[in-house]
Amino acid sequence: MNAAESLTFALNRLHDLPGLSARLGTPLAEEDIAAILDEAARFAEERIAPGRMEADRQGCRLENGRVRTPAAYAALLKDWQEAGWQGVAAPAEHGGQGLPHALWAAVFELASSADMAFALMPMLTAGAVELLSHHASPDQAARFLPPLIAASWNGTMCLTEPQAGSDLSAVRTRAVPDGQGAFRITGSKIYITWGENELAENTLHLVLARLPDAPAGSRGISLFACPKILPDGRRNGVRCGGIEHKPGIHASPTCTMVFEEAEAELVGEPHRGLPAMFAMMNAARLAVGVEGVGQCARATALAEAYAATRVQSGRPIAEHPDVARMLGEMRAVTAAARLLALDCAVSLDRARAGDEGAETRLSLLTPIAKAWCTDRGVEVAGLGIQVHGGAGYVEETGAAQIWRDARIAPIYEGTNGIQAMDLVARKLPRDLPAFLALLDEAAAADPVLKTPARALADTARYLAEAGPDQVGAAAAPFLDAAGWVLGGAWLARAAAAEPGLAREAGFFLRRLLPRATARLLEAMAPA
Amino acid sequence: MNAAESLTFALNRLHDLPGLSARLGTPLAEEDIAAILDEAARFAEERIAPGRMEADRQGCRLENGRVRTPAAYAALLKDWQEAGWQGVAAPAEHGGQGLPHALWAAVFELASSADMAFALMPMLTAGAVELLSHHASPDQAARFLPPLIAASWNGTMCLTEPQAGSDLSAVRTRAVPDGQGAFRITGSKIYITWGENELAENTLHLVLARLPDAPAGSRGISLFACPKILPDGRRNGVRCGGIEHKPGIHASPTCTMVFEEAEAELVGEPHRGLPAMFAMMNAARLAVGVEGVGQCARATALAEAYAATRVQSGRPIAEHPDVARMLGEMRAVTAAARLLALDCAVSLDRARAGDEGAETRLSLLTPIAKAWCTDRGVEVAGLGIQVHGGAGYVEETGAAQIWRDARIAPIYEGTNGIQAMDLVARKLPRDLPAFLALLDEAAAADPVLKTPARALADTARYLAEAGPDQVGAAAAPFLDAAGWVLGGAWLARAAAAEPGLAREAGFFLRRLLPRATARLLEAMAPA
Repeated sequence: MNAAESLTFALNRLHDLPGLSARLGTPLAEEDIAAILDEAARFAEERIAPGRMEADRQGCRLENGRVRTPAAYAALLKDWQEAGWQGVAAPAEHGGQGLPHALWAAVFELASSADMAFALMPMLTAGAVELLSHHASPDQAARFLPPLIAASWNGTMCLTEPQAGSDLSAVRTRAVPDGQGAFRITGSKIYITWGENELAENTLHLVLARLPDAPAGSRGISLFACPKILPDGRRNGVRCGGIEHKPGIHASPTCTMVFEEAEAELVGEPHRGLPAMFAMMNAARLAVGVEGVGQCARATALAEAYAATRVQSGRPIAEHPDVARMLGEMRAVTAAARLLALDCAVSLDRARAGDEGAETRLSLLTPIAKAWCTDRGVEVAGLGIQVHGGAGYVEETGAAQIWRDARIAPIYEGTNGIQAMDLVARKLPRDLPAFLALLDEAAAADPVLKTPARALADTARYLAEAGPDQVGAAAAPFLDAAGWVLGGAWLARAAAAEPGLAREAGFFLRRLLPRATARLLEAMAPA
Repeated sequence: MNAAESLTFALNRLHDLPGLSARLGTPLAEEDIAAILDEAARFAEERIAPGRMEADRQGCRLENGRVRTPAAYAALLKDWQEAGWQGVAAPAEHGGQGLPHALWAAVFELASSADMAFALMPMLTAGAVELLSHHASPDQAARFLPPLIAASWNGTMCLTEPQAGSDLSAVRTRAVPDGQGAFRITGSKIYITWGENELAENTLHLVLARLPDAPAGSRGISLFACPKILPDGRRNGVRCGGIEHKPGIHASPTCTMVFEEAEAELVGEPHRGLPAMFAMMNAARLAVGVEGVGQCARATALAEAYAATRVQSGRPIAEHPDVARMLGEMRAVTAAARLLALDCAVSLDRARAGDEGAETRLSLLTPIAKAWCTDRGVEVAGLGIQVHGGAGYVEETGAAQIWRDARIAPIYEGTNGIQAMDLVARKLPRDLPAFLALLDEAAAADPVLKTPARALADTARYLAEAGPDQVGAAAAPFLDAAGWVLGGAWLARAAAAEPGLAREAGFFLRRLLPRATARLLEAMAPA
């Protein structure tokens, strides 16, 4: 099965997305889902993927305050807009198609796998749409959502400042009322993905800043919408102060954005910016996890193609046992990561449909999908380089780019260390029974999962009560172990429904699952 | 302990290098060893390391057949020549100091850790010296060795061709006798490290090629010495046809070398080029393993410095438990990798001193040191990026460069898959008792090592008799497990001799050692 077929199979056969979509008021037949994903794969392979390597070579430049992006991206964005992919899961009343979020996750895997740097623009725009859908006033929604959903504007998330990285309570950017109901924003934000560009008609910055009367710390941060170009056509007081030099995603400009009395509107309540931002966190973190899946899938496809045709010692290297081992691991991990991310995506839809327990499942799975899938993205891309041998370290094969691009995903949208703390320090104590139920479900998927699932449950019970230092030192290996167990359970269930997946499931459960135990022992050892 | 202190401690206290050096005829006191490594560290930190990032940014360019390398390298090479580091372990009769190879390995770790791209030139030159010391005629040795040992010439290894990667028996480059005792070489070689440059006075290419009467396959390949500039000052018929674009080691030109009736001399016997090349393989593969150690050490030092000063949520991130966990893993793995590589280096000296079993130990440890230490190099560099958070993905911190540079080491000088097959398919069947003795030694180092060492021994016994497909699918995880066990045993022994290492040893044995078991289960599972 190719990526689109795997996604279609999982959504139709493992998750009954047709039934779920009917309950959400946008009924889709199995064939609709297959057709949408088939078309998305066609767009990704024919329209996005061919330009990936050239876009990486060209990268971005800052010239006189303007950010130059790869030459082919203007036409690509136009095609993306016209094809309507941006609106798949966006609200229908503002021009979207209102389909399940899981369908967007699947489309986004395909797009991100084709060119992660390009797909970051739609990803951030989708995040802005999500945020505004929940927190904007009706008037703001009517003005901002249609152009974002059409992808004629792009959205950014302006959170990080030099002194405020993982700790957003340290944000210093100021917002001063202008006396006419609007605000003036002054400050600097760093690591702003697609912060400045000449592709979109306009850019809407969603900015965390402090009002003059704001209390200190995280309870004094408000959220603002700040367009690059004002309604009357004037350029707003926001400019790009520099772009970062990065090992990967060269074609995605990572900008320092300087706000100098920039005109902005408050979104939601004063001082409630962080909770508003966190409300979209599940979708944003899931999207990053999906990027990991996409990089796994692309690395695997490239390595398979190379290994099938590269002959050494009289046969294709795909038949050399150690290369076959690496390809087997790449395929199995890709399949498991995809299923884990889709569980998370479907939980988001089920939570919206009001299904009992879905919100909790989503909140437990999100940090696991984000961290486990992105760590696997880097690992599988590294195996992809290794399958290529010397050619893997030469940029012309494209294997190295996947590895370089994939490396950002464990960092942004909350580092994987933050994800682990979110799971173990915040969510386990709150939702331990739900987590244990997830593990019972996993243990039932295959006999070989019983022992690691039980060990994970014991560790979860212990950590839900443990002190902060023990929790902190255990969190990352614990999350990783959970990913191996839950991913393995999904593969086992998938293989039960589709015998074609038995090879991947067997490889994963017999060869890779012991990593869960190793990481649990690590989590429980004294730090 | 810093790197030089750790190396000095290991060589003096764990390996009695003073005693061994006396037996090798070049007696060194403990203080001599400490002084040499202290001076090497000073040279590496003050002279090499400061230019690492700028050299990476400048990279290499091919212009009209000339390879431009970073601007600062000319002066750096001059200082390297004058300081005499190239000759540390080279034969005294040709200008070297004739000291133990282990001392060169230690110096090379420090140099490679300071700038891996630059250090590749001395590494390849040392390989050429090693090869010629064993296989050149006295006349060749007298002409070639002094300038190589002085580092005024650089040496290259011209093995790989487009169709002959891991399978060197497919080499097609031809060597035709010129009727006057010399040869004319015609063919193309790829991935030639520092193949063309304007820094060294001359470049001596060691080239694998076929004589006209050569039998097919690996028994028909001869070794030739082919200088870039001939003794009479003429340019030889060898030129750079292109340089590779790579994710890392930008400052080290990776060249396609085109030989067009280039004048060359036969080195050693006709058709015996591959065995001659393999004779220096232990030293060359060990050197690559040492590169992995060097990258571990540099990544750890950078991450420690960053984590000590970067404050989030009111305290340095080094005190955040998950960052402390990553730093703990980086320190423990670096220490273990260094000790494993040094065991291998000292075995090389012991083999030369004629110690019983040393040759076998060397041949068993070499693939483990090469593969395990280079895999750890990439992993530890990845953790180093993660400790830096967003700043880790920005080139200005230097963390990403280590990761990009380190990624070549699992590939060249025999991929890590080739190393694993060398260990499991070639050496285990031949030297199983010696391997089991190594494991007994490891099991005695700490009680926690008993179980994994026994499991490793059982697996080794099984694999020594198993069929090629089972061996091939098991080899890589088996080698990895061996590295975790042997590295852990060295850390336990080191901690027994030096209580200051107890923290690293405890972290490794309690938290990381379970990975050995996971990988053994993987090795033994059906493929």
